[in-house]
Amino acid sequence: MSFITKLRENNPLIHNITNIVVTNFTANGLLALGASPFMADAHEEVADVAAMSGAVLINIGTLNDHAIKAMLLAGQSANKHGVPVVLDPVGAGATAYRTEVTHRLVSELKITALRGNVAEVANVIGEKWSIKGVDAGAGDGDHVEVAQKAAKKLGCIAIVTGKEDIITDGNKTYIAANGHPILTKVTGTGCLLSSVVAAFLAVAGDSPLEAAAEALSFYGVAAEIAAAKTAEQGPGSFQIELLNQLSLLTPEEYGKLSRIREV
Amino acid sequence: MSFITKLRENNPLIHNITNIVVTNFTANGLLALGASPFMADAHEEVADVAAMSGAVLINIGTLNDHAIKAMLLAGQSANKHGVPVVLDPVGAGATAYRTEVTHRLVSELKITALRGNVAEVANVIGEKWSIKGVDAGAGDGDHVEVAQKAAKKLGCIAIVTGKEDIITDGNKTYIAANGHPILTKVTGTGCLLSSVVAAFLAVAGDSPLEAAAEALSFYGVAAEIAAAKTAEQGPGSFQIELLNQLSLLTPEEYGKLSRIREV
Amino acid sequence: MSFITKLRENNPLIHNITNIVVTNFTANGLLALGASPFMADAHEEVADVAAMSGAVLINIGTLNDHAIKAMLLAGQSANKHGVPVVLDPVGAGATAYRTEVTHRLVSELKITALRGNVAEVANVIGEKWSIKGVDAGAGDGDHVEVAQKAAKKLGCIAIVTGKEDIITDGNKTYIAANGHPILTKVTGTGCLLSSVVAAFLAVAGDSPLEAAAEALSFYGVAAEIAAAKTAEQGPGSFQIELLNQLSLLTPEEYGKLSRIREV
Repeated sequence: MSFITKLRENNPLIHNITNIVVTNFTANGLLALGASPFMADAHEEVADVAAMSGAVLINIGTLNDHAIKAMLLAGQSANKHGVPVVLDPVGAGATAYRTEVTHRLVSELKITALRGNVAEVANVIGEKWSIKGVDAGAGDGDHVEVAQKAAKKLGCIAIVTGKEDIITDGNKTYIAANGHPILTKVTGTGCLLSSVVAAFLAVAGDSPLEAAAEALSFYGVAAEIAAAKTAEQGPGSFQIELLNQLSLLTPEEYGKLSRIREV
Repeated sequence: MSFITKLRENNPLIHNITNIVVTNFTANGLLALGASPFMADAHEEVADVAAMSGAVLINIGTLNDHAIKAMLLAGQSANKHGVPVVLDPVGAGATAYRTEVTHRLVSELKITALRGNVAEVANVIGEKWSIKGVDAGAGDGDHVEVAQKAAKKLGCIAIVTGKEDIITDGNKTYIAANGHPILTKVTGTGCLLSSVVAAFLAVAGDSPLEAAAEALSFYGVAAEIAAAKTAEQGPGSFQIELLNQLSLLTPEEYGKLSRIREV
Repeated sequence: MSFITKLRENNPLIHNITNIVVTNFTANGLLALGASPFMADAHEEVADVAAMSGAVLINIGTLNDHAIKAMLLAGQSANKHGVPVVLDPVGAGATAYRTEVTHRLVSELKITALRGNVAEVANVIGEKWSIKGVDAGAGDGDHVEVAQKAAKKLGCIAIVTGKEDIITDGNKTYIAANGHPILTKVTGTGCLLSSVVAAFLAVAGDSPLEAAAEALSFYGVAAEIAAAKTAEQGPGSFQIELLNQLSLLTPEEYGKLSRIREV
């Protein structure tokens, strides 16, 4: 796999309908990586933007009625034009409203990849998982099983992130073991990761599962290097260094450090 | 006092309805501190989120009708469930609209703590104070008196920030003398401080005034260290280092550097 | 010219109605520079805020009906009170909606300065230019001609940014040659630049063209220094250092490094 090279050559346009907390960090992360971010949620233009994009990212971190309609319009346009759609169900299960909206999105749209922690992904397919706020998910239970169930039920790539990250289409399953705990101390690192998955899917050709797996692994390696370079400096410095590493990490260096396996 | 230790052990969920300028910085500041930020303003879920949170932060920096209704719904739910509510009346007095909305919020909600500069706090209780934009407030006059009047009138903790910070419930008054002028060169440092007060109130038990005083003092010490570490580097570097120090500052180091007194 | 000195003495209030991606970066950039940012888009207050401001910045990066009405109300108030208005037509031409809204804004408002890449500025005056997403514009064609046409057609200062930046009122034309390619790897550097132009216009007196030219040149020099100081570190570090340099760059140092010429 070397989707990162293709990504940096093609600079795919990624249409993000995301939450108000992470817009800037997401745009900077995508630019650093080599993609071209486009944020738009006006009902008048989202179908146009989605149609011309390499992938669409839908993130429910801060919902409202206007955003939901924009997500549906953009998603339908993407589905119609064969553009991949990534869903990040932030906080699904934390409130009834988020659960309901998530269920509506997966029933009305064809999702290419779903990315969340285990509690969120479990909630999307109607399974119970204890959750506290939007940062939940570490806990017992079989994360691989939840991911595979979600992939089969929705006919999509399911990505469950945690200590190790699971990427599966229900038949084939990868585990990406890179990453660093300090990622949980910076807001939007999960949200940005979902946009990074979208960017890799935009250049995936007929290998979306492998592209998604490389997205997870590449992001994890960048985070590890950033954490090592900012050890003992704190989460502010890590956040900036993560952006740096998304830009600087070469395919060669990535290849050496990536710890990904099929299970 | 050592509320910071309790905060870092309990990671309280803090529900923020804040302005679009500071969402990311606020979330990162709360994470760095040890709290768990939740941003949500959908009318369908704000009451649920407030009820499950350790504190609710309401900030009027960028208002609109949708946000005001969300603030009222979240605040009423917090009041009903005994969850502390912090109000940051950004720019109150700068426009008639902000003044009006602020007055509505304090009349319809029970506020636990009010945090602003002297002009904003004066405006909330209907006193005149000259103001320019949203960053105003340095000037003559008795800041302590304004704070004490506000505390008594609203039956809340009033916090007036400036060169020195005043924290009072109308009877007992603390002055926190830490901090650094470069804080005024980074947007959202006041807004983040209000969310930090909310996080300390979430673990205050029956000592909210002391918890609020520690919040001010802890934040001021973190800012001093960050300013010293980034001296002559500029406000960009300071902003990042402030996030670092909110994470790194230990209770012991804080205890040594804190300059807080009762008056 | 030394508008930067006047700007730092007067700290003009700059009213920004801008997109949700760049609010924080814009506010921090303006603060670093010495201006006083005010973000507000409530219909109830935008006319008041515009009237008391030194300049108004309108940026269409993330549009919706609410924002458009706010832009018109703020712009009309600014026009009425002699307050300069800067328009940043982000992505004009990328979707029919953006094109339409931009045309409406320039027909209903008197614009003092228009700032965009060549594709965006061409689109505002109804000329064709190939565009991809919101970061487009490098390409063939006569950028100076497009700028001069736009200035004459709208009766405003037109600023076309690219490898070299063109600042013209249709009669007199400056080329500012500072800057650095890494600016394109950080989101909102163009948006912030437009707000910086607004800040310089707020202290321009009767020399708006010269003030706008200094804004472009000053920003370009700050970017060059920031890029040199963070060489090989990546776009995350550059972003922070740009904020630092907007604060640290002295008029003397700027004078030495500025490469600006009349054509």
